[in-house]
Amino acid sequence: MELISDIKCFGGKQLRYKHQSVVNQCEMVFSIFLPPQCDERLVPVIYWLSGLTCTDENFVTKAGAQRYAAEHGVAIVCPDTSPRGNNVPDDKEGAYDFGLGAGFYVNASQEPFNQHYQMYDYVVSELPKLIRQTFPVSGKASIMGHSMGGHGALTIALKNTEQYLSVSAFAPICSPMHCPWGEKALTNYLSSDIASWFEYDASELLKVANLYLPMLIDQGSDDSFLKEQLKPHYLLNVADAVHYPLKYREQPGYDHSYYFIASFIGEHIQFHASYLYGISDKSPVLI
Amino acid sequence: MELISDIKCFGGKQLRYKHQSVVNQCEMVFSIFLPPQCDERLVPVIYWLSGLTCTDENFVTKAGAQRYAAEHGVAIVCPDTSPRGNNVPDDKEGAYDFGLGAGFYVNASQEPFNQHYQMYDYVVSELPKLIRQTFPVSGKASIMGHSMGGHGALTIALKNTEQYLSVSAFAPICSPMHCPWGEKALTNYLSSDIASWFEYDASELLKVANLYLPMLIDQGSDDSFLKEQLKPHYLLNVADAVHYPLKYREQPGYDHSYYFIASFIGEHIQFHASYLYGISDKSPVLI
Repeated sequence: MELISDIKCFGGKQLRYKHQSVVNQCEMVFSIFLPPQCDERLVPVIYWLSGLTCTDENFVTKAGAQRYAAEHGVAIVCPDTSPRGNNVPDDKEGAYDFGLGAGFYVNASQEPFNQHYQMYDYVVSELPKLIRQTFPVSGKASIMGHSMGGHGALTIALKNTEQYLSVSAFAPICSPMHCPWGEKALTNYLSSDIASWFEYDASELLKVANLYLPMLIDQGSDDSFLKEQLKPHYLLNVADAVHYPLKYREQPGYDHSYYFIASFIGEHIQFHASYLYGISDKSPVLI
Repeated sequence: MELISDIKCFGGKQLRYKHQSVVNQCEMVFSIFLPPQCDERLVPVIYWLSGLTCTDENFVTKAGAQRYAAEHGVAIVCPDTSPRGNNVPDDKEGAYDFGLGAGFYVNASQEPFNQHYQMYDYVVSELPKLIRQTFPVSGKASIMGHSMGGHGALTIALKNTEQYLSVSAFAPICSPMHCPWGEKALTNYLSSDIASWFEYDASELLKVANLYLPMLIDQGSDDSFLKEQLKPHYLLNVADAVHYPLKYREQPGYDHSYYFIASFIGEHIQFHASYLYGISDKSPVLI
């Protein structure tokens, strides 16, 4: 693992590393913010998954999260959104919504993507192991994300409820099976057989959830992707049907940008910190 | 004036406009954050001046200032760092430290720059007039900036003490007469006669200040430009000699980046708000 940059921020450190990923078979870059509390003790971690076209850096430079992470004593890990490199296949027309910058947090099974696009395993297993081995972090973790990364956070948390204490999302793709971005990605990474899509669809996974994980979603009412791509009604209808205590907030006037994320990231970090530090009385509950 | 973008942020609005500048004889772009308090009343304004290579957008996307501006009820105006456009002359070798993105907040008197590079008049007169005519702002204003913009904020405030209630800077160029960036800019915008440089040198202006304006400066100890370009000892020596109550803080471990700015921008906005709202007992004092 090689350090790319080390910059002091809010009394802590904003770090950037590259390392060879076994599951993605390429070099991967990630960023991690270590709060000042790391000088004295282990801290819990929140994973942030970014959206289409992003790298590990968008959230780090634009969300203003370090202030809150330093206040609450949590580390924030930001992986990249796809494998990268000359050998990694991209969308054949270079579109923004598939391939590089658009790994969709799945394990691809379809040629030629299956060799490198194993972002699910990378985020769930390989990266957390590396983080725990390398940095002064405890075993406690939560996960959050935006848009495609909101889809990633929700699906990963719902499939790994033992690994995360809470999950949140900004403007997530709530049912990739039912939107153009998701249909394209799932068809090409997995197969045209939609039976293989269920395990990567938050609304489908919520139907079969057997544990209530604390879940917070913020969605801007003026988000231009709301109706065609994000479709929160799929998730809300399921949550209602199975009595899942999802906290969903429509934020009037907000769009899909990092200005929206910056406006509410403090509340998301506070939400996660309340579970990571055990000061909330609403722990995950068996259904 | 034409609206470029209008994005909700922390309950307020992050706006971007373009307009034809009379003094710079070109189209100029600026950003303004209006806090939620604007719905009910006039708010004071803080002007932010950016550093070399920046546009109006760097501070807006990276500093995380909107949160604090919304808390304190202040607008923040971010002008560009130079005139722009096909007709605007640049550094003859396209260097980053002169010409486009490097207006140094002076009124150029030297050909060919004198036609467009009138950033001093733009920031001191033309832009504030436009802001007051267009937005729900009061007559109260403060000014702050970073690096070249720190030099801009200090020199502009020292020359216009009646116009600003307070001034602050992050890692300012403290004596452009005594550093490579400043010598190049002042020679080419003004002349090789250093007598013309004094009015754009914060350390020289501090020597003849006749009013104490509340002044806060933060400087990272690990700033790679500290010794060759920024040279705060020039300003500190003058402040000491003339008993100017400059609040100067060396911040250990911080560099020259926006991570440094983000870490302390909250304190700067609080500092200005205390004068803009008259809740500090340390008003400007006649010397």
